[in-house]
Amino acid sequence: MNNSIIFYIIGWILKLEAAFMLLPCATALIYRETAGISFLIPMALCLAIGIPLTIRKPENKIFYLREGYVSVSLSWIVLSIAGALPFVLSGVTPNPVDALFETVSGFTTTGASILMDVEAVPHCLLMWRSFTHWIGGMGVLVFLLILLPLTGGSRMNLMKAESPGPSVGRLVPKVKSSARILYSIYIVLTILEFVFLLLFRMPVFDAFTTAIGTAGTGGFGIRGDSIASYSTALQIIITIFMILFGINFNFYFLLLQKKWKQAFTNTEVLCYLGIIAVSIVVISANIRSLYGSTGESIKHAAFQVGSIITTTGFATTDFNLWPGLSCTILVLLMFVGACAGSTGGGIKISRFLILFKSIRKELMQYLHPRSVNKVTIDGKPVEHEVIRATNVFLIAYLMIFAGSILLISVDNCDLVTNFTAVAATLNNIGPGLSMVGPVENFAFFSNGAKLVLIFDMLAGRLEIFPVLLLFLRQTWKKF
Amino acid sequence: MNNSIIFYIIGWILKLEAAFMLLPCATALIYRETAGISFLIPMALCLAIGIPLTIRKPENKIFYLREGYVSVSLSWIVLSIAGALPFVLSGVTPNPVDALFETVSGFTTTGASILMDVEAVPHCLLMWRSFTHWIGGMGVLVFLLILLPLTGGSRMNLMKAESPGPSVGRLVPKVKSSARILYSIYIVLTILEFVFLLLFRMPVFDAFTTAIGTAGTGGFGIRGDSIASYSTALQIIITIFMILFGINFNFYFLLLQKKWKQAFTNTEVLCYLGIIAVSIVVISANIRSLYGSTGESIKHAAFQVGSIITTTGFATTDFNLWPGLSCTILVLLMFVGACAGSTGGGIKISRFLILFKSIRKELMQYLHPRSVNKVTIDGKPVEHEVIRATNVFLIAYLMIFAGSILLISVDNCDLVTNFTAVAATLNNIGPGLSMVGPVENFAFFSNGAKLVLIFDMLAGRLEIFPVLLLFLRQTWKKF
Repeated sequence: MNNSIIFYIIGWILKLEAAFMLLPCATALIYRETAGISFLIPMALCLAIGIPLTIRKPENKIFYLREGYVSVSLSWIVLSIAGALPFVLSGVTPNPVDALFETVSGFTTTGASILMDVEAVPHCLLMWRSFTHWIGGMGVLVFLLILLPLTGGSRMNLMKAESPGPSVGRLVPKVKSSARILYSIYIVLTILEFVFLLLFRMPVFDAFTTAIGTAGTGGFGIRGDSIASYSTALQIIITIFMILFGINFNFYFLLLQKKWKQAFTNTEVLCYLGIIAVSIVVISANIRSLYGSTGESIKHAAFQVGSIITTTGFATTDFNLWPGLSCTILVLLMFVGACAGSTGGGIKISRFLILFKSIRKELMQYLHPRSVNKVTIDGKPVEHEVIRATNVFLIAYLMIFAGSILLISVDNCDLVTNFTAVAATLNNIGPGLSMVGPVENFAFFSNGAKLVLIFDMLAGRLEIFPVLLLFLRQTWKKF
Repeated sequence: MNNSIIFYIIGWILKLEAAFMLLPCATALIYRETAGISFLIPMALCLAIGIPLTIRKPENKIFYLREGYVSVSLSWIVLSIAGALPFVLSGVTPNPVDALFETVSGFTTTGASILMDVEAVPHCLLMWRSFTHWIGGMGVLVFLLILLPLTGGSRMNLMKAESPGPSVGRLVPKVKSSARILYSIYIVLTILEFVFLLLFRMPVFDAFTTAIGTAGTGGFGIRGDSIASYSTALQIIITIFMILFGINFNFYFLLLQKKWKQAFTNTEVLCYLGIIAVSIVVISANIRSLYGSTGESIKHAAFQVGSIITTTGFATTDFNLWPGLSCTILVLLMFVGACAGSTGGGIKISRFLILFKSIRKELMQYLHPRSVNKVTIDGKPVEHEVIRATNVFLIAYLMIFAGSILLISVDNCDLVTNFTAVAATLNNIGPGLSMVGPVENFAFFSNGAKLVLIFDMLAGRLEIFPVLLLFLRQTWKKF
């Protein structure tokens, strides 16, 4: 293992985090909140550790996928621990496990909260909470790639480890340029949402936190009832932007290049939009009797479907009270997740496409044992390694899922709570059903269960393998 | 597709089924039940169709895996339809969908029932119900292999399609001899249980139906409270035999050959027994307060764990009322299932071994991209095809699982009911939780939902691929 380059990257991450904390500090100044002081010590600490680690460039430039995975996992852990300090220091969440839960939930864009009364929290901490979504959404290491003078191979391996989806979404041959394009699209879309929210009269602070929370498909709300008390127009805007942020960013890049045909025939995007449309229609019909009018039903159905499939996790209504069919569809959507290469979580549409095609391939193999069947998506063959990794991803995902349910069931909560708590964290959604429903929170879990769910959030965001690698003895061996 | 040989096999299956129905006929004679008449028409029908189909041996002897899969799937469907007729004709279950549900549940050794009052059903039908478990447990086509003069390749492909587990449990080079040995072990163990139950004073009829129901890991009880009203001694005997029937029959064959070391170091068997032991300990502690004494808690824990992991489905208590931890363990055990090459269902321990090892292999690949990692079990390398098929099995299993939950949720039942109803049928267990708990039944589902669950039972017993192949257009093409 090339330790020097890993420390170098972590050092940079800490320096970046100190810079990120300027935003909540500024918020504290504007709102004249003393809680802002609780950011100064973490910032000083980040710089005190980060600067010495980055003074010298690492001499050993060897950087394999192993180094990429380990540095991404460790970076996210360090990022979360440092990011949790303001919550503890300000006294908002005195329990360090709670603070870590809230911060990991932020960076991983989960949006599951342990705060009992979010409206009592100072603005600067609310801003930090929502900002962690935005930082984690596109990936902090992808951001670092824009700044850091690393060589080609290392860049690719870092991006591979942090980008969601079965294959890497390199838009252009140069990794640095890809990262820059991704962040440009991300920033423009975020500003667009912010402007639209302001136009329809959302207060500035609300609009900013909601926009960055939507952009990262995070889901932390700044009001006790999430999005329910905003106007219908605002709810519709948020619905649309949630769905937009769940689309593969490659789609927007194709639009920018005016490759219309290629953009609008993308199988993953079409499936994604198709699933959303069908779900909205079925749920609207199913909940019609609860909301009086068809329009109201469609509005709630669309918002919740958009929120769950993109793994954002905002809510306009308590869908825990919806009938069985609607609840079941939402639970299934939790697993589907958004497109690869978006800021959303879940298993991802493109993985499902690959999985479905590998079932078909297996069946064809039984029919014609000697024929060679290739899995293709959008006319391009999918590499054997990608198929195998996708299959194993699903298996590892399930094992972690089952193991987590078993571990948190020690708290003796009901099955739906345990099942959806793990589903909501491993898929980086936020709310589940029953005791973790949209009007509830995760505070009641024991510290042990919270640590399991923290692991799930990280494993979900980093797509399992980088995190699992930390637990393998061989990873730490020299060779 | 070689249709002639498929018809030939189905013809034989029908003739066998007519023969099997002699047992309920004899029961009707003993108990002087007029309901016995309802078996005569199906028997006549089976012979009327079966005899002409088997008069001439098929000239075309080509028999690939495709023919094996298709003939097994079709055989099981034909077997179930014919087997359901007595339920309809006797008026016990006038709804044909209910009758089919009960029969498929029998043959697939699920044990999920739609009967509201099982104690009001005539003995001959109860006997038929339990006997279907025994027939389906080891497999009717495996039985046919003993009788039928087929050539080597076709035998192997039939056995592959019906035997549970990731690889075929051929005990000796000759398939016919393997089938004979399997059935001999099966019969001896069944008789042993029957004798033990008689020794501890179970009535003859009860002992016989319980023994054949345990042997097939079926789970149809002949009393309203399943096994709860029998003595502790009888419950312990049933617990032991359930666990014995969940062991890979290869283990008993090794014992017969006095290969002690090989038998007792079998990874799958050790894991199976380990999981059972740990589950019993944890659940006993968790339910201690419900049952007054430690002994009573262990008895109930052991029975329910044995019943669920072997996918039998008998019950001595309403485990739906157990605390969250115990319920969660039982639900997870539903998926684990028994050993490959046993009569039990579920995903199977050996598949999990392969799946775990393929995760490890994938991680090692990231560490040492150029090294060749082999998956081995019991020191023997697992073939690449078996690993791939196991991975794809799990994927197909999950897709069917999710799809089934979605389809039956149209009935608007709660999530736990839908989830465990599918888990209980796809894993061939029987009872689930909530509305399909051990003291409930499946009668309340709509006909549509019942058809979905019937599909799940068949897909679970035949391990998905043979059933899925029926839906592929290419299967029916000539080539």
